[in-house]
Amino acid sequence: MYSTNPISKKKYKVPNNEKDSERIKRFLEKNKGKDVVVIQGLGFVGFAMALVVANSSHDYAVIGVDIPTKSGYWKIGAINDGDIPIVSSDPKIEEYFNTTKNKGNLFATHDISAFSEADVIIVDINLDVKKDSINKELKFDVDLAPFTEAIKSIAKNCKEDSLVLIETTVPPGTCLNIVKPIFKDFFKERKLDSRKLNIGHSYERVMPGSNYIDSIENFHRVYAGINSKSADSTRIFLESIIKTEEFPLTKLSNTNSSEMSKVLENSYRAMNIAFIQEWTEFAEIAEVNLYETIAGIKIRPTHSNIMKPGLGVGGYCLTKDPLLASWASQNIFNGNNLPQSERAVEINDSMPNHTFKRVLKAFDNDIERKKILILGVSYINDVGDTRYTPIETLYENLLKEGADISLHDPYLSYWNEKKLPILQKLPKNKFDILIITIPHKQFNEKRYFDYINYTKPELIVDTFGFYLNHIGKLDNRIKILTIGKG
Amino acid sequence: MYSTNPISKKKYKVPNNEKDSERIKRFLEKNKGKDVVVIQGLGFVGFAMALVVANSSHDYAVIGVDIPTKSGYWKIGAINDGDIPIVSSDPKIEEYFNTTKNKGNLFATHDISAFSEADVIIVDINLDVKKDSINKELKFDVDLAPFTEAIKSIAKNCKEDSLVLIETTVPPGTCLNIVKPIFKDFFKERKLDSRKLNIGHSYERVMPGSNYIDSIENFHRVYAGINSKSADSTRIFLESIIKTEEFPLTKLSNTNSSEMSKVLENSYRAMNIAFIQEWTEFAEIAEVNLYETIAGIKIRPTHSNIMKPGLGVGGYCLTKDPLLASWASQNIFNGNNLPQSERAVEINDSMPNHTFKRVLKAFDNDIERKKILILGVSYINDVGDTRYTPIETLYENLLKEGADISLHDPYLSYWNEKKLPILQKLPKNKFDILIITIPHKQFNEKRYFDYINYTKPELIVDTFGFYLNHIGKLDNRIKILTIGKG
Repeated sequence: MYSTNPISKKKYKVPNNEKDSERIKRFLEKNKGKDVVVIQGLGFVGFAMALVVANSSHDYAVIGVDIPTKSGYWKIGAINDGDIPIVSSDPKIEEYFNTTKNKGNLFATHDISAFSEADVIIVDINLDVKKDSINKELKFDVDLAPFTEAIKSIAKNCKEDSLVLIETTVPPGTCLNIVKPIFKDFFKERKLDSRKLNIGHSYERVMPGSNYIDSIENFHRVYAGINSKSADSTRIFLESIIKTEEFPLTKLSNTNSSEMSKVLENSYRAMNIAFIQEWTEFAEIAEVNLYETIAGIKIRPTHSNIMKPGLGVGGYCLTKDPLLASWASQNIFNGNNLPQSERAVEINDSMPNHTFKRVLKAFDNDIERKKILILGVSYINDVGDTRYTPIETLYENLLKEGADISLHDPYLSYWNEKKLPILQKLPKNKFDILIITIPHKQFNEKRYFDYINYTKPELIVDTFGFYLNHIGKLDNRIKILTIGKG
Repeated sequence: MYSTNPISKKKYKVPNNEKDSERIKRFLEKNKGKDVVVIQGLGFVGFAMALVVANSSHDYAVIGVDIPTKSGYWKIGAINDGDIPIVSSDPKIEEYFNTTKNKGNLFATHDISAFSEADVIIVDINLDVKKDSINKELKFDVDLAPFTEAIKSIAKNCKEDSLVLIETTVPPGTCLNIVKPIFKDFFKERKLDSRKLNIGHSYERVMPGSNYIDSIENFHRVYAGINSKSADSTRIFLESIIKTEEFPLTKLSNTNSSEMSKVLENSYRAMNIAFIQEWTEFAEIAEVNLYETIAGIKIRPTHSNIMKPGLGVGGYCLTKDPLLASWASQNIFNGNNLPQSERAVEINDSMPNHTFKRVLKAFDNDIERKKILILGVSYINDVGDTRYTPIETLYENLLKEGADISLHDPYLSYWNEKKLPILQKLPKNKFDILIITIPHKQFNEKRYFDYINYTKPELIVDTFGFYLNHIGKLDNRIKILTIGKG
């Protein structure tokens, strides 16, 4: 089985149970005397963390560990070959990667025996929520198994006195109720003293885009430990990799608090987006331009976080974190569910249906064979990230109606999850309907207005009030339907 | 029938249908040449507006109009007698009132014929929502009749080309769908040209407390008119009374937008308070100190509006404005209700039940004859304002359990709505339970800590994390139950 680097097209043989001890040994010899940090999970957070740790003034030796799968193993190969395993608009990614190449202090492996060499182990693997909204009602469940497996692989191998720092977004209560007991059991088996181990929780606030590295290195953090010794170890480690003088750490009383903090801040945002959806629909029937109204409200500092209308919500966090909280309240603490937080996810998941219905209505419920161009497939602006993008729901709905859909995104040439090609270059041909979904900065360029004025679509669907800020740039005979504007 | 000024104890005979034209005439003669502003409604907003308008550099003659009721007529008497009709901690209230007394440019009357003299009529009367939550489910209705009666009394009397500025929080759509047609009908009858009339909407953002006047004069405003002439007149008037150079006005496209803006900003706040309630309960079972957690989150500017746990929500706006919106969507625009906004009111209304339940649980469901002192009756800190105070729900619940409840509030000696005495001075006797409900600044004074340390209650119930900021000031043998802290 081979795993292919989609960027360089290089192929890597995916190992089965082979050890990688020789290469680990050589790496550690080259980095003798350095503290060793092993990062479990080389995804969106883990790889960036690896760069930050490897570039910190502390001069750590960093080993990235990930499980060897067909879809992911190439990342390990790429890192060791000196190829950046992601596409990013942040110039610091390349800069940091090159420095680690020169220093030779970053290595990647599938071999979990690396944990036995670690002074610090950072857990950056995913913990997913399974959602099912088939019958309009949201059902969901949390499968902890992959996460607990990962923790077990650490508990089996780690040093007695290492620091295990959980960065994964987990259901509140996980460190104390799930992680700690696993270590206790395995340490008993291994005849180690689990009181010597340090377990901390501190979540990242990583944002994709041009401030990718800064969103780790130059940003505030919250942390906690399962005991005061663990909290201290966590603090000392974080101080060695983050600019904590400028961005002071907030210590919380226990890991439940730190875990809750993460899901609360994302639920807050999810809920505020959901809240605006009912006002979007109200504004549309009341002939109100909600963008204008919200601009007048946002002036108040007490209301500065109010959200604007849009197509929907995507990404890995806001679409699931409120559910992790509700799940934990019920399953870890025997409490009630969190109905508002759950409902926020439900509303946000169905948001694209509103845009879909407005498109349909504009064409008397008949869009069969209409040529539609969707401008923007990424769930977030100025980045090519399709994880849980709300464009999927829109796309599926339009497809069912028999529309002829093309996709354009200046940051993407392929939609991994849907196995669909994306036009990375702005096409030249004409479409009946343009749907703009996300404020990629390119869409402000003159060539986009020129294209639209030249091809004159029957309708532009503006899902986030983009063209309200560009009055006069489009031929005023072109009809624009704006979500959140009556 | 007499109406008594609760401050000065002066009695005023409430007029029936008597005209007040003589006094109006005399007032206008004294103020000859001045533009006349008539303010309808001398309540919480109207009186402060009257002071602001009368003190503006434009030098208006201001007439306050209110309906002659037993409970309210004394305000008219007081204003004309030179007595301030409210208790306020804002020194500007007295300053402004004295200036108008010296200038003689403020007069109050019950006689609606005053409208016929007005260049500008400001509508500051209440528009209430009738709520009924007896069966746990929130039922509500909006009775427009008192508001439309007030508008009719203006339409019958006003000059053809006056500006009618609605400041009342109304269901979105009211100016265009209710106010405008009333004027059209009456102007037709009066053979006047309704196109000459100007109707504007601009809502105040008045806050009781020490910045009462500034919250009108030195704050941002949104405005709109039913047509561009009306919008212009509204702007010109607002520029004459508000420091718009420092606090620029936001013009909205139509009155629906301005009306929606007000109920949206209050719904935003109501919903964010409601959101924290389910996290408060989660934090309590998960041994999390939610205050600490929220402090770590609020550091992020994108999350700065996140709310904290508390006893509940009171006041005139947040408890009803989301319902005005939902009502309007259904009844004026034939649309859907606004479930999240409605639900926010429902959750907030029942919030005090949570504190009540925790008190009860702390005493094994038996608080009969327990002596309870509630610290704070006002719904908001540093003001004596009991309108829809959440303390009512708490009080009623405790009373049903047979508790012996005393009330203390440094700003209040009487609870109007409940006809109950309030101890304005801190009592000297002992209580079994103290419940602190609101952060009045006095509670920070040493004498409050001394009192508690001396009387040693069995339990302090801290509904908003007050004593977390005063660690060490209370005898550590005193048990504190903090809402939102597990």
